Amino acid sequence: MPYVSLVGAAGYTGQETLDRVLGHPELELYAVGSDTLAGQDATALDPRLNRNGGRRVPRLITNAAALACEADVTILCLPHEDAAALEPPSRGVVIDLSGAHRLSDPAQYDAWYGFTHPWPESLGEWSYGLPELSPPEGRLVANPGCYATAALLALGPLADAIEQDSVVVDAMSGMTGAGRGLKPSTHAGLVLENVSPYRVGAHQHVPEIAQALGFPVSFTPHLLPVRRGLLATCNVRSTGPDLRELLEEHYASSHVVRVLPEGVAPELSRVQHTDAAEIGVFEDRHTDRTIVICALDNLGKGAAGQAVQNLNLLFGFAETSGLRLEGVLV
Amino acid sequence: MPYVSLVGAAGYTGQETLDRVLGHPELELYAVGSDTLAGQDATALDPRLNRNGGRRVPRLITNAAALACEADVTILCLPHEDAAALEPPSRGVVIDLSGAHRLSDPAQYDAWYGFTHPWPESLGEWSYGLPELSPPEGRLVANPGCYATAALLALGPLADAIEQDSVVVDAMSGMTGAGRGLKPSTHAGLVLENVSPYRVGAHQHVPEIAQALGFPVSFTPHLLPVRRGLLATCNVRSTGPDLRELLEEHYASSHVVRVLPEGVAPELSRVQHTDAAEIGVFEDRHTDRTIVICALDNLGKGAAGQAVQNLNLLFGFAETSGLRLEGVLV
Amino acid sequence: MPYVSLVGAAGYTGQETLDRVLGHPELELYAVGSDTLAGQDATALDPRLNRNGGRRVPRLITNAAALACEADVTILCLPHEDAAALEPPSRGVVIDLSGAHRLSDPAQYDAWYGFTHPWPESLGEWSYGLPELSPPEGRLVANPGCYATAALLALGPLADAIEQDSVVVDAMSGMTGAGRGLKPSTHAGLVLENVSPYRVGAHQHVPEIAQALGFPVSFTPHLLPVRRGLLATCNVRSTGPDLRELLEEHYASSHVVRVLPEGVAPELSRVQHTDAAEIGVFEDRHTDRTIVICALDNLGKGAAGQAVQNLNLLFGFAETSGLRLEGVLV
Amino acid sequence: MPYVSLVGAAGYTGQETLDRVLGHPELELYAVGSDTLAGQDATALDPRLNRNGGRRVPRLITNAAALACEADVTILCLPHEDAAALEPPSRGVVIDLSGAHRLSDPAQYDAWYGFTHPWPESLGEWSYGLPELSPPEGRLVANPGCYATAALLALGPLADAIEQDSVVVDAMSGMTGAGRGLKPSTHAGLVLENVSPYRVGAHQHVPEIAQALGFPVSFTPHLLPVRRGLLATCNVRSTGPDLRELLEEHYASSHVVRVLPEGVAPELSRVQHTDAAEIGVFEDRHTDRTIVICALDNLGKGAAGQAVQNLNLLFGFAETSGLRLEGVLV
Repeated sequence: MPYVSLVGAAGYTGQETLDRVLGHPELELYAVGSDTLAGQDATALDPRLNRNGGRRVPRLITNAAALACEADVTILCLPHEDAAALEPPSRGVVIDLSGAHRLSDPAQYDAWYGFTHPWPESLGEWSYGLPELSPPEGRLVANPGCYATAALLALGPLADAIEQDSVVVDAMSGMTGAGRGLKPSTHAGLVLENVSPYRVGAHQHVPEIAQALGFPVSFTPHLLPVRRGLLATCNVRSTGPDLRELLEEHYASSHVVRVLPEGVAPELSRVQHTDAAEIGVFEDRHTDRTIVICALDNLGKGAAGQAVQNLNLLFGFAETSGLRLEGVLV
Repeated sequence: MPYVSLVGAAGYTGQETLDRVLGHPELELYAVGSDTLAGQDATALDPRLNRNGGRRVPRLITNAAALACEADVTILCLPHEDAAALEPPSRGVVIDLSGAHRLSDPAQYDAWYGFTHPWPESLGEWSYGLPELSPPEGRLVANPGCYATAALLALGPLADAIEQDSVVVDAMSGMTGAGRGLKPSTHAGLVLENVSPYRVGAHQHVPEIAQALGFPVSFTPHLLPVRRGLLATCNVRSTGPDLRELLEEHYASSHVVRVLPEGVAPELSRVQHTDAAEIGVFEDRHTDRTIVICALDNLGKGAAGQAVQNLNLLFGFAETSGLRLEGVLV
Repeated sequence: MPYVSLVGAAGYTGQETLDRVLGHPELELYAVGSDTLAGQDATALDPRLNRNGGRRVPRLITNAAALACEADVTILCLPHEDAAALEPPSRGVVIDLSGAHRLSDPAQYDAWYGFTHPWPESLGEWSYGLPELSPPEGRLVANPGCYATAALLALGPLADAIEQDSVVVDAMSGMTGAGRGLKPSTHAGLVLENVSPYRVGAHQHVPEIAQALGFPVSFTPHLLPVRRGLLATCNVRSTGPDLRELLEEHYASSHVVRVLPEGVAPELSRVQHTDAAEIGVFEDRHTDRTIVICALDNLGKGAAGQAVQNLNLLFGFAETSGLRLEGVLV
Repeated sequence: MPYVSLVGAAGYTGQETLDRVLGHPELELYAVGSDTLAGQDATALDPRLNRNGGRRVPRLITNAAALACEADVTILCLPHEDAAALEPPSRGVVIDLSGAHRLSDPAQYDAWYGFTHPWPESLGEWSYGLPELSPPEGRLVANPGCYATAALLALGPLADAIEQDSVVVDAMSGMTGAGRGLKPSTHAGLVLENVSPYRVGAHQHVPEIAQALGFPVSFTPHLLPVRRGLLATCNVRSTGPDLRELLEEHYASSHVVRVLPEGVAPELSRVQHTDAAEIGVFEDRHTDRTIVICALDNLGKGAAGQAVQNLNLLFGFAETSGLRLEGVLV
């Protein structure tokens, strides 16, 4: 059973990844790193870890120590720039949930992330692991961004069937997508009863979507007053083929992504707390456009769930092993 | 001072209109109709009407009685089909907040509203009163829909400067936009922590937008877990002119609609509980598209505020008389 | 493996119970009843049941048919009066999640539920199954109410150590506690950004609490603008013993209920989507009172989780089998 | 017309007070202080100040400069310890919205606020201005805390008619009550879909309530996932008199506080964005206790509205001049 070291466990994606690793029948949690909590009991991370007699979660160590473990699997849940600065462990699988290794062109980091990538020559060694479109390859895997995942699940199978300059993506995310850092924009006074568009036309997931699709799209993200969940409403013009058919074919055998029946729209509530994604397809009645809407949980299929799915593929486990898929929770 | 009769006061738009009429220095509330509350004291509508010693709000009467008043101003806050079925008062100004008189082509009611208009020949007598784009004319005024108002404020001044088939509008509304009726979609269990796209590509405000712009746009509305407020994110390709400049010029003298400085996006929180609208303009960094975002309160500029603004214009009052514009409420 | 028949699956508690039965390693779902959805595929209840290739959930049948199954376990998730009117299956374990069999004195149904119990003589055959205080006995088990569970977990172990007339309980519940029915009070317009006290001093869980404690308490429930979760803030005066010590002893070996360390208060977020409960104990600095706060999920420990826990005890399974306890979900 | 200087305008209470001063027909805004925004245009505080052509709001200055104005009215909206450290202007009316001058016993500041009061001998010069119970006297006025206001409006008129050791107050506040500072507890991730009790039995409004009532009460505050509004559920045992009658008599002539009819409970939604308070009175059916619930807006009657009401009384204006009372906003 592969041993897992989790680096940067105290953020939202770190905590959610911890949940998936703990619930995975074929992974063994070996080390948990957090610079802010190092030296403390795992319950400092979440008191719920004490429940049911206490799960076997190791004492928290520094991120450097967690990296030095050179575990079979190292999962990075760090800020972009911190992850970029790391020299990755020289053995084992490494999954990076930040954006630090998603873009193959180093110049894009200056342009979209606001820092110069310290290891530009290494970017080619990382594969972009989006299981339904570009399964992970090799031992270094960049886990896609949450918005990028939703947009690409909706648009990827259609890339050759749509007018490239017709594509408009408007997306909305629950506020856990904005991270645990204390900023005015994450203060509840600005989140409750509010919706804010942000980084309009300039979000760092844009080049990631363009790289995967082969052409740029216009993308506007909005912050929602909900804790979790993400919706990408994609608007395209077909060059001929039936887009619903293409999507249904592409996802016919997927247990993670589901194309909803005609007339049914995805909603946050059906994907929250899961690693599944749902796609709705609608013909516009008044124009010749098609609307493809993808919903997922930003921390599930948009982060931790996808990381585990990538691991499952790399290790030859069942693709959905350890994923949260089937709940009917209210 | 014109006497006002309010028909259908018990719904969200009715109640909000009551608020504006009560606060208007140049209007006198004369009759308040509500079939469900007829015969009761006005506090049955809202116990707050009792505060401060009780305002002079008349006892509630039936809608038929309120119509029969033939007041100087009759404001209709009824469901679409009920408003369509009415024979409007033969004298005085009539403002209809429903969609029953917004479309000049009767066939559109069959296509988008699901009923055959009972007075098709009368539709030509109504003007579409969107003060910043098509000021009200004559005594019969159709008050624009909330989504249509937001989309048209953003796109109206640009209609001749954009590629018509490039326009995509994704909009989100607080749930008061869905009305006070008890439906599964307005049950809090489906609204809290959720976002739902609905009537995708088929919403009844679509033909209204198309009629005013002169061409159709692709439009997708989403229901938000907030009480009030509406955001329309409009994505267009310019045919050459600078779109920000066009918008700034168009709204330069407006006290109701404001174009925000570069880099500033509208948010619900700054327009909630007001009759103002804010517009943000953003160049997409990666494509040749421009994003124009308009925020307003669905019950303010999207309904009651606009109705009062229309009245102000018709009666020659100051355009902003009685409007809620200037608050700095948290 | 016991076969389970679920009666009344379409409500909130029904759906949550379905989730627990599906996830239980030692229960087999045999029949699912819903009068409104009978004849339809189980995905009519929740489209998520289709995920992961579709779980084996049987076609929906009528409640009468589900009852007639006389399964090894029948779980009733019906409105109070409907459950009271039933003749329970003559064999197998029956767990009633409604209030219809919780009170031993039939007169209390007239007084607090507003109906005369149709089978008053049968009430003595039902045990009140609150595992930590009064484990289920016999084959007919009344599952406690959500508010009653929270209040009793906090107060039950203290009943002999507090002044009986000192007890005040103020509780707050997420709106799934109010059920799926369409009522003005569950319309999102009255729930969002609002909190409403309701049935003040007159809630039907009051006699249930009094029956279990042996004396009445003053109880005020409030409806919160959250989907799930319940908090009971209980205020008491001790007759001498250390109340924290009593609670810590009582729950020392529990894997479901946990007494938090000094200074730590329970919050909804740590119990939502789980079947666990957390209790915080605080000495008042200014009076001689103690505040005992219990948090749980109204649909988890307050309903479906407790039903499964009762089943586990009756069948001799591990007490926490199939329960959701350990998550560290954000 | 008195000139007003506002000190500490950038916090929630500062901004709300600015709104009331701007809307007051008999006050003239003269200076606006904010150390973080000094030197900037008033729109740095809130861009909405630009609307309607721009109101006459002066450029922002430092708090020291705003104090040095020695305006006719100085309103302090500062953190407790900062306000305590100030030497108040030597002329004019001073209203302090912090807790720095509410307690007459300096030792209480060490005990409940965690700092030693720097001007203990000056505390006797300040009056506690709660208009309905202890109208402001002299030129130095301490404005009551939001929780204290709600508890005292409910309990003040009953102080002589209830058993002193029977009183339990559980209160809940919207998160603007927690201030604009960036703390983990105000991060939206901990506020959305959550409720947290905090400073249980140890909140700094406790001694303020005790000082005004003449005896201590047990008080537990909870943070709600709403922006504004506060509810205090007070539970008492009468020593004989009819409590509803006492409250109705006390508030019979008030235009700010209203006792609701039997059976009607206050809700946040009816007091939000207003300076009014509502009180509901309920006999417990099962015990001999009475529940008195008071709702108000923490920033309205709980802060800025009460400050203005105090000013109105001091200057002999109509008590409700400039207050937000009568809205029927949805």
